[in-house]
Formats: sequence, C-alpha cells, structure tokens
Amino acid sequence: MRISRLVTRTLRDDPPEAETASHRLMLRAGLIQQVAAGIYAYLPLAWRSLRKVEQIVREEMDAAGSQELRMPALQPMELWEQTGRAAAFGDNMFSLEDRRGRPLALAPTHEEVVTNIVKGNVQSYRDLPVILYQMQTKFRDEPRPRAGLVRVREFTMKDAYSFDAGDAGLDASYQAMAQAYRNVFRRCSIPVVMAEADSGAIGGKDSHEFLLPTDTGEDTVITCPSCGYAANAEKASGVYPDQPIPEPLPLEEVSTPGMKTIASLCEFLGVDEAQTLKAVFYAADGEVVFVTIRGDLDVNEIKLKNALHCNELRLAEDEEIASAGLVAGSASAIGITNVRRVADPSISSGGNFVVGANKNDTHYRNANYPRDFVADLVTDIALTKPGHLCAQCSTPLTATRGVEVGHIFKLGTFFSETLGAYFLDSEGEQQPITMGCYGIGVSRILAAAIEQNHDDRGIIFPAPIAPYDVHLVALNMADEAVAEAAVDLYDRLWAAGIEVLFDDRTDAAAGVKFNDADLIGLPVRLVVSPRNLRQSAVEMRGRTSEEAEMVAVDDVVEAVRGTLQPA
Amino acid sequence: MRISRLVTRTLRDDPPEAETASHRLMLRAGLIQQVAAGIYAYLPLAWRSLRKVEQIVREEMDAAGSQELRMPALQPMELWEQTGRAAAFGDNMFSLEDRRGRPLALAPTHEEVVTNIVKGNVQSYRDLPVILYQMQTKFRDEPRPRAGLVRVREFTMKDAYSFDAGDAGLDASYQAMAQAYRNVFRRCSIPVVMAEADSGAIGGKDSHEFLLPTDTGEDTVITCPSCGYAANAEKASGVYPDQPIPEPLPLEEVSTPGMKTIASLCEFLGVDEAQTLKAVFYAADGEVVFVTIRGDLDVNEIKLKNALHCNELRLAEDEEIASAGLVAGSASAIGITNVRRVADPSISSGGNFVVGANKNDTHYRNANYPRDFVADLVTDIALTKPGHLCAQCSTPLTATRGVEVGHIFKLGTFFSETLGAYFLDSEGEQQPITMGCYGIGVSRILAAAIEQNHDDRGIIFPAPIAPYDVHLVALNMADEAVAEAAVDLYDRLWAAGIEVLFDDRTDAAAGVKFNDADLIGLPVRLVVSPRNLRQSAVEMRGRTSEEAEMVAVDDVVEAVRGTLQPA
Repeated sequence: MRISRLVTRTLRDDPPEAETASHRLMLRAGLIQQVAAGIYAYLPLAWRSLRKVEQIVREEMDAAGSQELRMPALQPMELWEQTGRAAAFGDNMFSLEDRRGRPLALAPTHEEVVTNIVKGNVQSYRDLPVILYQMQTKFRDEPRPRAGLVRVREFTMKDAYSFDAGDAGLDASYQAMAQAYRNVFRRCSIPVVMAEADSGAIGGKDSHEFLLPTDTGEDTVITCPSCGYAANAEKASGVYPDQPIPEPLPLEEVSTPGMKTIASLCEFLGVDEAQTLKAVFYAADGEVVFVTIRGDLDVNEIKLKNALHCNELRLAEDEEIASAGLVAGSASAIGITNVRRVADPSISSGGNFVVGANKNDTHYRNANYPRDFVADLVTDIALTKPGHLCAQCSTPLTATRGVEVGHIFKLGTFFSETLGAYFLDSEGEQQPITMGCYGIGVSRILAAAIEQNHDDRGIIFPAPIAPYDVHLVALNMADEAVAEAAVDLYDRLWAAGIEVLFDDRTDAAAGVKFNDADLIGLPVRLVVSPRNLRQSAVEMRGRTSEEAEMVAVDDVVEAVRGTLQPA
Repeated sequence: MRISRLVTRTLRDDPPEAETASHRLMLRAGLIQQVAAGIYAYLPLAWRSLRKVEQIVREEMDAAGSQELRMPALQPMELWEQTGRAAAFGDNMFSLEDRRGRPLALAPTHEEVVTNIVKGNVQSYRDLPVILYQMQTKFRDEPRPRAGLVRVREFTMKDAYSFDAGDAGLDASYQAMAQAYRNVFRRCSIPVVMAEADSGAIGGKDSHEFLLPTDTGEDTVITCPSCGYAANAEKASGVYPDQPIPEPLPLEEVSTPGMKTIASLCEFLGVDEAQTLKAVFYAADGEVVFVTIRGDLDVNEIKLKNALHCNELRLAEDEEIASAGLVAGSASAIGITNVRRVADPSISSGGNFVVGANKNDTHYRNANYPRDFVADLVTDIALTKPGHLCAQCSTPLTATRGVEVGHIFKLGTFFSETLGAYFLDSEGEQQPITMGCYGIGVSRILAAAIEQNHDDRGIIFPAPIAPYDVHLVALNMADEAVAEAAVDLYDRLWAAGIEVLFDDRTDAAAGVKFNDADLIGLPVRLVVSPRNLRQSAVEMRGRTSEEAEMVAVDDVVEAVRGTLQPA
C-alpha cells in the first residue's frame, strides 16, 4: 500500500479527548474515526490489524474443535422475554420496532438464538459435545462509552457457545476454551491474568475473566502474590480482619452534632471504623433497601445485586431515603421495620458497635446483633480489598487495575431448560443440554495490544497483528534512482509474501516520514535514500531496536524475514 | 469436519414456505435457519461458503486498487437528515433511540459516513482517486421479505465508494468496479446481465444492475436480442408502437353503461386500446396525482416517482379518488383543475381518443391533446414492454426475470457538496469530490449461485465457493477396515490442502448418506466401502458426472486435485 493513496492522516498532537494510551495512539496514527459516542469507523490500517486478530482467534477456535457460524444481530424481543433477559439487560440493550410495530432487539449476546439452533439440530448424546462460535457485530448501549475501543456501543466480538451432555463435559469444554484464549492472547502479545468473575446478566455459575493489567483499566483485580488466586474485585472473596467479640454493654445514646461521615464520627468518639456499623441505602428495582456492614468495609454492589435478584441496583436518592422515613448520616437498623434490611456477616465480627440512632446528630454506642436489631437477610456483600487475607493461603491480597479482554462462563442448563433444548442420553432419557459461553472482544484486543505495546514515539505493533510487516520509507522520491529502487524493493517484498506500507509521498519531509513510521509502529522500517543507495544498501531498523543496520539491497528480503521470525 | 459433529440436519421433504429453488435447497441442506421474517442464521456449511464468497469479492476489490475498512451500522440519524435520506428511505430504514433518547439509524448503506471519513482524510487532487470498501452487515426493513436469502432484512453486503477529481475519473473507477464485479460473478458461476438501472433512494446519475436471469427473480430485465441493450424494466426506454395522427373530430359524449375497464370499453366501442387514453390515480406523499397515458401502455411507477420528486408513491385509495371529486372508471383530464395532472407523451401519439367523461357510465370520443385537456407536466412515464422496439436498433425487445446480485451507481457530487467533502485541484481551486458507489449482496450471491447451479437431487456447488471440496462417505463404519481407511484418507486429503466433509455416521443408511451428499452438493464424492476396499480402491464421482470411477487408494489425492482444477 502506498501512503500517498492510503485513507489515513496522522496527527502531530495528542487529541484532547483521549484518556488512554491506546485511544490516543489509535487516533493519532489514523486507525479509527469516531462516528458517534462509542461508535467508531475502523480505517484501513486498523481494519487490516483487526482482520489478523480475527484470524488468530479463528485458528485457535478451530483448533479447539469448534464450528464457525453466523447469527443475526436483529432478533425478536419475544425471545429475550422468554428468558427474562429483556429486563435483565434493560437499557443496556438497544431495542426498536420494525415497520409493523414488532419489537426487536439488537443482540448484545446470542445465547437465546444459539440455543434454538442447537435445539433444532441436536437430538442425542451422540451429537454432543458441540461448540459453535461466530465473529459478529455486537451492540450494547453502554451508559458511559470510554477509552476509544475499550468501552464502545458497537464492536466485533467472537462469541462461542458449548453444548455438553453434563457437567463433566462442560468442564472439558470450558478448559479447552480457556486454553484457546490463553493462546490467542499470547499470540497477540497481551499478558493476561485469568481471574474469577461475576457472571452478570449472562447468568450462570462459574465464570472467569481474562484481564490485561494496566493502570487505565476499569476493572480491579484482587490477586494473591503467594498462591496465585485472582478474582475481579466484584467477585473476589478474602478474609477481612476479625474483630474481637467483647462482653455486650448496654445500648447508650450519644450526641454527635454534625458527624455525618464515618471518619468524623470515629474521630469524635475516639473509636476505629471497625468498631462502627455503617448504613447504606440502595434502590433495588426502585425499592429502598437498608444495608448494614461493618464500618471499615465497603459494599460490593455486584454481590448485593445478586443477593437481591434485582435487575437494577443503585444508591438511593436523598428523597427516596427521606420518604422511607430514614435519616441519612445517623441511620441504623435499630427499630427499622418499613424497608427491607440486608446485612453483611461482618456485623457479628466485633461488637458494642457505634451505630446511628435514626435521629439527627445522635448515635448509639454498644449496638449488638441480633440483640438490638434484626436483618431480613444476612449474606456476604463485603468488597474484598487489598490487605484483606487470601482465603486460600492467608497472604495479604493486592489489587491491580485491568482491562477485560475475554470472559468465559459456565451457564449450566438455564437456557436449555427455558428454551427446551434437550437431548436423549444413553439410557434414552431426556436431559437438558449443559451450556457454556465464551467471549472475546476482537476490537478490544487491538486496543489492549496497543495499550501494552507502545512507547512515547508511538505504537509497537506485535508482528502477528501488525497491519503490514514493513514500513518502507523512500527519502527524496524526486530522485529517480530512489524511486526506482524503492518501487523495485516494494514489489520484491510483496512477491516474497512480506506486506509493505510504502511511504512514497513527495511532499513530506524525512522527519515527518520517520515520525509517522514510529507512530504507526510496524515491526520493521526500511529506508531507501540517495546516500544509502550509493552503498547499494538499505537501512533497516526494528521498531524497538536502538540501532539501525545497513543491508545490501539484494539481501533485504532475507534480512526482513529473519527479523519478523518470532524469537 | 465430521458430519456426526456438524450442527446441521438435512430435511427429506421440501419445506412448504420455500418459493424458490435456492430457498428450498438451503433449508433442506441445513444451510440456514430462520430467526425472524427475513432474518436468518447461517449454519456452519453456509458460513464456510459465504466466507469463500467474501474472499473472492475481497480479492477482486483489492486487485482493483480499493482499500478495505469497516464502518459502523449504528449512525446518528442527524447525518441522514443532513442529506434528506432519512425521509427518502422512510420505513425501509430501521430507526431507534439510545438510552438518552438520541435518534439513531441502522444503516442500510454508508454514503454519509464514508463521505465524512474521506472529507477528513483527503485534501488535494494528489490524494485522489480513492476507492474504499467494506464487508458489513446491512439492515433494511423490507416490506416483503422473501425467497430465503434474496430479500432479507439483515444481510452481508460488500459496499464500495469511489472518490475522484472529476467525471473522467469517476468513469474510470466505475469501469474498474464493473470489471471487478464481472470477475466475481464469473468466479462464483453466476452468469449475469449488466443492465441499466434506476438509482432509487441512493440518488445519482448512471446506474447499472448485475442480474442473474431466473424465472423466480423479482426484477424484469428488458433486453434487445440484437444490439445487447439491457435495462431493468424500471429504467428501460424503448419505442412503443406509433399511432397515426388523424384529422381531429369534434368531442362527442357516448353512454358506456358498466364499462369500467379499458378492455370492456374497447370491446363495447369497437376500438383498440391504443385509441383510448387511460387515467390512473396515484398518491404522491399523500397528494392525489392524475396520470394520463395511452390505453395500451402502463405507467412506470419509478419514472413517475422520479418525475414527481416524491418519497412515497402508491396507487390512490378509492376514498382519496372520490374526495378529490374524481370518478374512477370514467375519468379523464378534461375539465380537471383541482389536482396535479401528469401525462405521458403518448397522449400525442394518435388522436381522437376515447376518454372518460368524469361522470358514471359515460365517455367521450375524439379527445385530443391539447385541444380538450391540459397537463401540468408531460414527461416519459411509460413502462417499456416486450414487443416495444429497441431505441438503439429498432429490434423488438424481450423481457426476462432476474435476481439483482450487484448494483453500481454514479453518484456525482451530491453527497460531497451536501457534507462538504472538497479537494484542492491542481490550480488550487476548491472542488467537490465526484463519487460513485458499488454494492454486492454477499449472501445473495450464495442464493444466486444455488439458484443457478442445482438439479433435482440438490445443490451443485461451484467449486470456488463450496463449503468443502470433498464429501467423503464411509459405508459401514462399524467395519474396522473401513473406519481406518476412511480416517486415513480424511487426514491425507486435509494434509494435501483439500477440504473434506466426512460422513462418519454409524446410524445412517447408505441411501441416506448418498442423498445427503447429493443434496449438499460438494464438487467431489468419495465412497469408502468394504467392497471398494477389497480392490484397494475408493469410488470417486463428480457431483455432475453420471459415472463414478474407481481410484486406487494411493492415487486419490491426485485424482481429486485433477477433478477440482478449473477446466
């Protein structure tokens, strides 16, 4: 490809809207162009790279024995109502009506459709296991699109679905997919952590995320430096510091004028946060829920949402709190009966707690559960934090930020039972098919690969997913010998199966060309110039090498090949 | 691929809903599964085939010097309002709102977005010409989805857009794309007619369709058997038989009780249809339009719609006709002033016409234009029919039905002027970029290839787009020698780069396997059986050969290769 023809313009300056390195570099290198919030066009360089990512994913999926198909994005909303997921996805799913007023969904995922397909094609245990996958455009109406290709509303996803005759089969399919994912990320130069994860609106039992650790990631991963335990903070369970259980003292009202936060309250009363219980108010599908947790801990909203089986969970608004008769800042479960009360087991770790007295500027000392208050539900809703201890080996846990690049789920039989996908087992008994699902964000892999592989000059494309192998720079194209040698080299490289981006511009200075080559970041840069040609040589430099080397014109193809070989 | 694992089930009987051969065969062979009206999942066999079609299209587009990119399906509706095409597409375009209530379109085509991309990346005539293309999922809310993959609401399309510095450049890009399209159809074994076409809601000047002639097609192509002229009936212009112009006679009222049709009227009065003028009432964007055309001709609604510059055109309803004070069955333009009157020039070919008298059961003889009635607009709105004469060589034209598989358009500068995509010419003057656009329905190519290539036993896949090259049938897999020989052959063929579908089923009879092989229609069938193995041979048969041949086991790879070579 000649740059003079390439529909791409590099930018000299950082675009102000870009928050992450990959977003900034993809805009500057002319890889993507925004069409609407969270909706991008992939310009030719990005698209070549994405096609290579797709091919790597395809090869690994095929090698794991799965079959590619293509399912549609437009689906009858009815199908989503059958499984209850129209409500579960809510505003995150784009919905529309066709010209006859029939409700349609723009599918964010394909469990419903793929289950129906398998239902029509699988009859007996002899037809199982089956893994189906597709590379397809997904639509999700993200509330906060961000970071270029990381959180977008339309994106290419590889989604796979496994169908097995039971849990042992599912375990095997799950392991095969996990291994395929590790292979994909390795080939794309993305070092991932495989972490236990919450399964969210997809539903199901076990679930793991593959995350690229990076400061700009939007997920928090809790890891154990000793035993290797890793889990998304949404899912992680660790052991928080135990508090001694004291002899219960009588409840005692204290005046706490103006003490609205745990920190100020603790300072005023001279107690630790772990000696208090805090109240947090949520709205679960619109209903106010009163949550009690020990003061040094935070609520894990995902665990809470799962415990409440609700579709929407958010902090309650001030007027919702007030209209439920609750006093924000001085609330406790003592005497509260008109709202649902949920508590974390940490309310029993310690005692004689400071709690609100449900009137302004007043608290109680020495509150004890269940002597002084009750809960409708006591269940683990505590957020595991760095410093808590690993549940497996008691080592203090650490936290890192990460970007999710893949997610796998054991679904079990929810979809097959709901949609009627059964098989006959070897005894002739009808059984629901056991399912798993497996997603990789193809466009997010590109962003993650750039996030991981760049320097202050630009992108450092991993060779397997670089849009081209070689960036051929011709200096002084007006010089006929240069033009001739460059075009000849260009043709010879392509003939040898090496993909070349050729900077043939006549109106760009050498510095501009070199900067663009560093910014776009192909693995190998070749420079044809009058000076080099006088030595019958071409300058060759790997994108990450400090030193350039001179290569005889006739040896260039071999030299490039050697550089591109994986080490 | 082993059929025992393949997610596909063939059907023995024709599905009742299938109207065309390709639809019927694609359902029976398990290629597609309907998800909603006009919305299909492509099962693994179809998807392999479609990916090969995509690759052929990609190779021809790349060879023609165009660059692949990927644009999004979700687009701000605002962009479509800027060009006026939100109204032009109307209900044919899916529209929705995001969670913040912002209107979005599911793009049926991409002129708006691609023009904005080029606008941001092209500055000077030196950056032109440029052709961009994508393989992308398109959405169109067709009023009447039909014929399997022929008229659907979600489909894969290759759409390309050319950008040139003027009309001469556009002509060259247009020719290059036309040639690329011919190459694609040849490689997919689809014999096409390239016909002049109307450019519809896409807009623009010249336009051509590529059509596969077939009785089940929904388009009519008018062709000249002598000079090769070909045009979609919507666009075709031919010469209808001239009528002699007689001496005008005085207008004369006649009673025509019960004569509501042209045919009954002609019989009653003893005149030819060409001696009458007929009145047809349309509603153009809701306004009643009175159309007059010679009685032996029909109105070409596309020409009429273009002449009226309206977005929606349909026959007027009875109450609309009545409320405009018109008398259906006895209407003429004589004395009509309260509605818009459009006439075809055929009102002046002939004379002393029989026309309606605008009262029930009454007509006039000897109506003449413009003596007796006037029109607001006289323009060619006649439908060219077989038997009319070729405008170029006066040969009687013929008509065939066809399925459109490609469509190319000269757009001119409408989009670049509307959206501000200009370039600096060699004089430093700002000029709008001249555009063309080019579409191929990838999934429709598959349907057309099957429509063209089948027999009463099933599909006859053209080798370049067959899901697999070879259908390997093992008879009696319980026989260890058969199983071993078949698996060995399967492995050797794949190792030689030959793609094999392996019927390894233990529970299917030989007849079922042979029927499935014919139905799926791969180019070569190989049969491993106890009897064949006794001769150390395998039976080989091309899908269209009457005769099978025995091939020594060791020679099979070579023999298959020879059969797959293009003749």
